[in-house]
Amino acid sequence: VTQDVLAVLFGDPFAVMNTIGLVAFALVGSSKAIREEFDLLGITIVGLAMAFAGGATRDLLVTRVPLALQSPVEIGLGLLGVGLAITLNVVLTSPETHPITLVADAIGLAAFATTGGIVATEAGVSAFGIVAIATINAVGGGALADILLDRAPFILFEDFYASCAVLGGIAYWAAGAFGAAGSTAAVVCAVVTVGTRLVAVVYDWHLPTVQTLGRLSE
Amino acid sequence: VTQDVLAVLFGDPFAVMNTIGLVAFALVGSSKAIREEFDLLGITIVGLAMAFAGGATRDLLVTRVPLALQSPVEIGLGLLGVGLAITLNVVLTSPETHPITLVADAIGLAAFATTGGIVATEAGVSAFGIVAIATINAVGGGALADILLDRAPFILFEDFYASCAVLGGIAYWAAGAFGAAGSTAAVVCAVVTVGTRLVAVVYDWHLPTVQTLGRLSE
Amino acid sequence: VTQDVLAVLFGDPFAVMNTIGLVAFALVGSSKAIREEFDLLGITIVGLAMAFAGGATRDLLVTRVPLALQSPVEIGLGLLGVGLAITLNVVLTSPETHPITLVADAIGLAAFATTGGIVATEAGVSAFGIVAIATINAVGGGALADILLDRAPFILFEDFYASCAVLGGIAYWAAGAFGAAGSTAAVVCAVVTVGTRLVAVVYDWHLPTVQTLGRLSE
Repeated sequence: VTQDVLAVLFGDPFAVMNTIGLVAFALVGSSKAIREEFDLLGITIVGLAMAFAGGATRDLLVTRVPLALQSPVEIGLGLLGVGLAITLNVVLTSPETHPITLVADAIGLAAFATTGGIVATEAGVSAFGIVAIATINAVGGGALADILLDRAPFILFEDFYASCAVLGGIAYWAAGAFGAAGSTAAVVCAVVTVGTRLVAVVYDWHLPTVQTLGRLSE
Repeated sequence: VTQDVLAVLFGDPFAVMNTIGLVAFALVGSSKAIREEFDLLGITIVGLAMAFAGGATRDLLVTRVPLALQSPVEIGLGLLGVGLAITLNVVLTSPETHPITLVADAIGLAAFATTGGIVATEAGVSAFGIVAIATINAVGGGALADILLDRAPFILFEDFYASCAVLGGIAYWAAGAFGAAGSTAAVVCAVVTVGTRLVAVVYDWHLPTVQTLGRLSE
Repeated sequence: VTQDVLAVLFGDPFAVMNTIGLVAFALVGSSKAIREEFDLLGITIVGLAMAFAGGATRDLLVTRVPLALQSPVEIGLGLLGVGLAITLNVVLTSPETHPITLVADAIGLAAFATTGGIVATEAGVSAFGIVAIATINAVGGGALADILLDRAPFILFEDFYASCAVLGGIAYWAAGAFGAAGSTAAVVCAVVTVGTRLVAVVYDWHLPTVQTLGRLSE
């Protein structure tokens, strides 16, 4: 059975990562909206926006009609994540900061960095283009969700978050440059992104600011 | 004469709805910017952003150059709405909350949900794609206007607003699925959207939040 | 030598203006992020967002894959601007409001209004389309940077800023309409934009609001 699962995984890494990412990010986005006491439509829209915005931006950047608008399966996966968030909210207190949500967020980040790397490579952009599209695919949904919730997109400065997608994108490009198959590069990208993100959460990693660099050099 | 008007309406529902939507939303967007004491350029930009952003996003999602950049007529309609807002402001106090503005907003919402449904259907996207593009076309302009004014995009949670466009989009898709002509589906979509929106304003409808659902179940 | 420089300038005005704009706007965007005490990744992302967002939006509007994702040179120019901002911050106090940053901002505004005019003309859009794309190319980066920094996009109402790009776009279109070569139109656009912007800064120009118009007419 394990071999079959691996065969499916290695057969179409985009479909696997896309499925994981849609459910995980819809769950996280809806949890944020529930915490802000949005109504049910607002919860659904923020959840779907977080699930679909990164991939839609990725598709626009390589000038193709967003997949989410063409495939009826995608919306079902997003709504599954929204439903999970509402269920969780009944079961748990403070779902947005619960470990389940933090882990789902790390998994979604890794899954979408990987889909971004795959699509960018197929589109034949530059090395920077691969890293940029992987990062935009991974953090675009969360940034839009934060804008809809009228928060500053925290992902840029509050902790070691977007950096993990940048590292994953670099890993995807590097694996390809060293001759790895697309499915291997996808696994490497996902593992690097989710690994660095979970370690950053557990050890409370932060990147330095210019101000702390200045203080260090005094 | 009525028959001629109907012939024109049924002949090119996109052109009719697009014209109505551009004037109505430019008026509403400019009224918001006037209330925030923006300068004349700011008023014009917010008005045009509200008029054009939804349709431009729709066009990008189906990967075509936005109509607004190709047709010199469109910008004239937008500027007409901006001029109406400035004129209204001289005549009325608090134009943003005046019934004229509320009705113009409901009409624009309905007109743009309809143009979204038409373009999405022509582009051959899924049923979800039709509803999503109708909603984005209808609420995208208002969301961008609110972001430019540094407000939280209120349309997602303050009242029964985006829901009307979702219902209109579903009506458009359902009419087509039941075999109605495009022009009939357009009228159905516009009537459902503007009708539910006006009823929601008059009766102060709200969607429930997860918190109120929780309180109801206690 | 002057003749050679002019030959290069007149030979490919897009490349010249694009190079100038990328370095200048990356510097300005990073300076804003440094002032808000963002971490190093945040500084880099805001700088690159300010440098690339206007041009990427321009490219999406004419439905082509953004240049920034295809050319490895572009990212290098953006990172050069980020590095300059960090260096300046060590040398200067309050880099965001320093004359060097204000002048860099005016130069970037002019350079990107010009690249917008060039690409829009090549894409064959309407006269309004040329002015709109020149303005979006020029102010889009600053607007996104401000949204990422959770400020209201100040450029619309705090001073005579976007207006300069509108005037530059009109100048580009008018020069072309009067039969000028593309390179001449580019120089006219850049000079009008940077000139009006610097004069506006020095003399503290403001556009009137509807409220001040009302007070004037009393």
